[in-house]
Amino acid sequence: MKPNFSLRLRVFNLNCWGIPYLSKHRCDRMKRLGDFLNMESFDLALLEEVWSEQDFQFLRQKLSFSYPDAHYFRSGIIGSGLCVFSKHPIQEIIQHVYTLNGYPYMIHHGDWFCGKAVGLLVFHLSGLVLNAYITHLHAEYSRQKDIYLAHRVAQAWELAQFIHHTSKKADVVLLCGDLNMHPKDLGCCLLKEWTGLHDAYLETQDFKGFEEGYTMVPENYYVSRQDLGPFPSGIRIDYVLYKAVSGFYISCKTLKSTTGHGPYNGTPLSDHEALMATLCVRHSPLQQNPSFIHGPAGRLPLISVLREAWTELGLGIAQARWWAAFAGNVIGVGLLLLVLLCVLAAEEGAREVAILLWTPNVGLVLGAGAVYLFHMQEAKGLCRVQTELQHVLGREREAQDLSSEAQLALLLGQMGDRAEDQ
Amino acid sequence: MKPNFSLRLRVFNLNCWGIPYLSKHRCDRMKRLGDFLNMESFDLALLEEVWSEQDFQFLRQKLSFSYPDAHYFRSGIIGSGLCVFSKHPIQEIIQHVYTLNGYPYMIHHGDWFCGKAVGLLVFHLSGLVLNAYITHLHAEYSRQKDIYLAHRVAQAWELAQFIHHTSKKADVVLLCGDLNMHPKDLGCCLLKEWTGLHDAYLETQDFKGFEEGYTMVPENYYVSRQDLGPFPSGIRIDYVLYKAVSGFYISCKTLKSTTGHGPYNGTPLSDHEALMATLCVRHSPLQQNPSFIHGPAGRLPLISVLREAWTELGLGIAQARWWAAFAGNVIGVGLLLLVLLCVLAAEEGAREVAILLWTPNVGLVLGAGAVYLFHMQEAKGLCRVQTELQHVLGREREAQDLSSEAQLALLLGQMGDRAEDQ
Repeated sequence: MKPNFSLRLRVFNLNCWGIPYLSKHRCDRMKRLGDFLNMESFDLALLEEVWSEQDFQFLRQKLSFSYPDAHYFRSGIIGSGLCVFSKHPIQEIIQHVYTLNGYPYMIHHGDWFCGKAVGLLVFHLSGLVLNAYITHLHAEYSRQKDIYLAHRVAQAWELAQFIHHTSKKADVVLLCGDLNMHPKDLGCCLLKEWTGLHDAYLETQDFKGFEEGYTMVPENYYVSRQDLGPFPSGIRIDYVLYKAVSGFYISCKTLKSTTGHGPYNGTPLSDHEALMATLCVRHSPLQQNPSFIHGPAGRLPLISVLREAWTELGLGIAQARWWAAFAGNVIGVGLLLLVLLCVLAAEEGAREVAILLWTPNVGLVLGAGAVYLFHMQEAKGLCRVQTELQHVLGREREAQDLSSEAQLALLLGQMGDRAEDQ
Repeated sequence: MKPNFSLRLRVFNLNCWGIPYLSKHRCDRMKRLGDFLNMESFDLALLEEVWSEQDFQFLRQKLSFSYPDAHYFRSGIIGSGLCVFSKHPIQEIIQHVYTLNGYPYMIHHGDWFCGKAVGLLVFHLSGLVLNAYITHLHAEYSRQKDIYLAHRVAQAWELAQFIHHTSKKADVVLLCGDLNMHPKDLGCCLLKEWTGLHDAYLETQDFKGFEEGYTMVPENYYVSRQDLGPFPSGIRIDYVLYKAVSGFYISCKTLKSTTGHGPYNGTPLSDHEALMATLCVRHSPLQQNPSFIHGPAGRLPLISVLREAWTELGLGIAQARWWAAFAGNVIGVGLLLLVLLCVLAAEEGAREVAILLWTPNVGLVLGAGAVYLFHMQEAKGLCRVQTELQHVLGREREAQDLSSEAQLALLLGQMGDRAEDQ
């Protein structure tokens, strides 16, 4: 690779809101999205909430000339909704389904049935290895009483870990998607601190779009006031994040987002706003590990966010155990009732009522059993993430101590030199 | 690192058969295992089927001096059963839970409840990065009619992909565990071909143990004839696999396995045999990618095994869809019956019977609904793996074509040179 090597990467990201039968004007929007992507010819188009595989196939056919390679990430019962269209050949594919993703009995929220995941596509562009990740985390249905907070934090950690462990030989890392988290939310900070990813909106000098980079705005025809909850002017939950690993430097030249309308005005493409980023990758002299440059103080934000996440997961574990215990009690009561019904059925008087109540009671015991098992699994999953965080915290503290000792030794050495000079 | 660098690694692997209340002499075996591990002081002890976290805590306490670092991989409802004890500090931890792992209604087999997984521990040993993986795949309950074959092949692929993507910067890769596959089984070949891992038993010059390296033998007090099925003399399903990635060379100096007794004779430690390997890592001159050395013919075994796995997964998908369709029909019949019962309940004659049958019928519809959703998810998961295999097959074929073209060009060039010389 030449030392003056430079690569321009045009990236498109959109949560397409493509729920069959439920999302308004879905087919028309998919058609217009295809036309727009064909016209703009991005390097990569990363889409979320393409729930129907037919929609993916429709887009694949429509975009086959401008984007010869494409991939749909299948997962869960419905699907992950994630897909990518690419101008460049996809070299490798892998996906990771999040261990925790809501509750199956919250059918009206539906996230559990989707099998939310993170997908990774590896590209080789002019000798450079690009790892492009796409994801969609669990939705936040209530800011005030967010019962999914622990799950979202766990997902953010799994996402961060997946990126950390699979990108060790990548030159450039790109993550696009709907994180369902505001920029300063715990999961978002955890993700950025552990992976070192930069936020295109915060980094770019040239942003065109809504104030504060909002990606869900009341001006959008498909967005109701209810969707925005306590943030009537808008929220930023869709992101383009990136980093260059070593020997390379990456910057966001421009970031554009739609502003409640389609890219050329008219009806919007989705209830979310589209993000369009132009990234520039260049050669850069090898840099030291930033934590060593910044010294022990550089590790403090990570340690602080790890601690906060650890506490939040602890609350989630307590909640999961409470539900498991509650379901356990229901099973106990149900079994007692079954014994009682058997006794009643043996007598003449209440035989009919006892037989009538027998099956619903068996259903109650089985249902409570399923709830018990689910919450036991939830508690175990949260405990697992908490243990991983605990381990990283331990290693970070050790590194901090070592770094402090090294700085102290350096300082003492310098003082010694000065004393000798004098 | 010095050019004459050399590292000796002593590794222990055992499927501990630690099912609380069911496995014979569990507590005594755990105690003896702890004593043995303390006595031998391996670098790494990788254990499977430690189902009870209490057993792990017991061993952790017992081994705290010889193995200061340890990790238990929590997963599923029961747990993954995987844990590792290490003489060296664990730098990083991550785990991946397999998407497909049997059926929840096969309660007597129980694999679904365990959340089978692969765990990764990263070590830094004398400046060398060691990725140590531990896993336990779905059991094979019947060789003749293996209903879990597609799941095990999918697990082997997920394992291979996880290793492939997370070990790109590792110097040495080690995989230990109970793969529940014979050496020439499809999943085992897929794993070895895609990751390039070598089998310690096949590579070592110094093996002490049972003929054919069997790790479940009839001589073991805890093994019944039924466990071995059509292989009365034994089976090899536990492995130590390894590879050095670049700049390093790894070899297995010795491999020892127990032979149906404890390590110092007496009662065995488990129903599986323990594996003890001494690996030696040395500096090595940088080697070319073996596929380029071997030319297009070198890719043929991988292409062949990818094709075979693709076909096997296709059969699994057809089976999953058949079950989903069957459950769909049951739902249809159940709903029709519910309508019929409503009509009957409205009439005088059969009201009581109708009311009595209402709840079991609702149960039937709900149960069939759960089965339908489960098999839809199964089909989606298998399709996902099949698509990934298809993608790799495509890339491999392209590489083969390119390699053939390059060889042809080289041949033509040589012929041209000779003609010029003449």
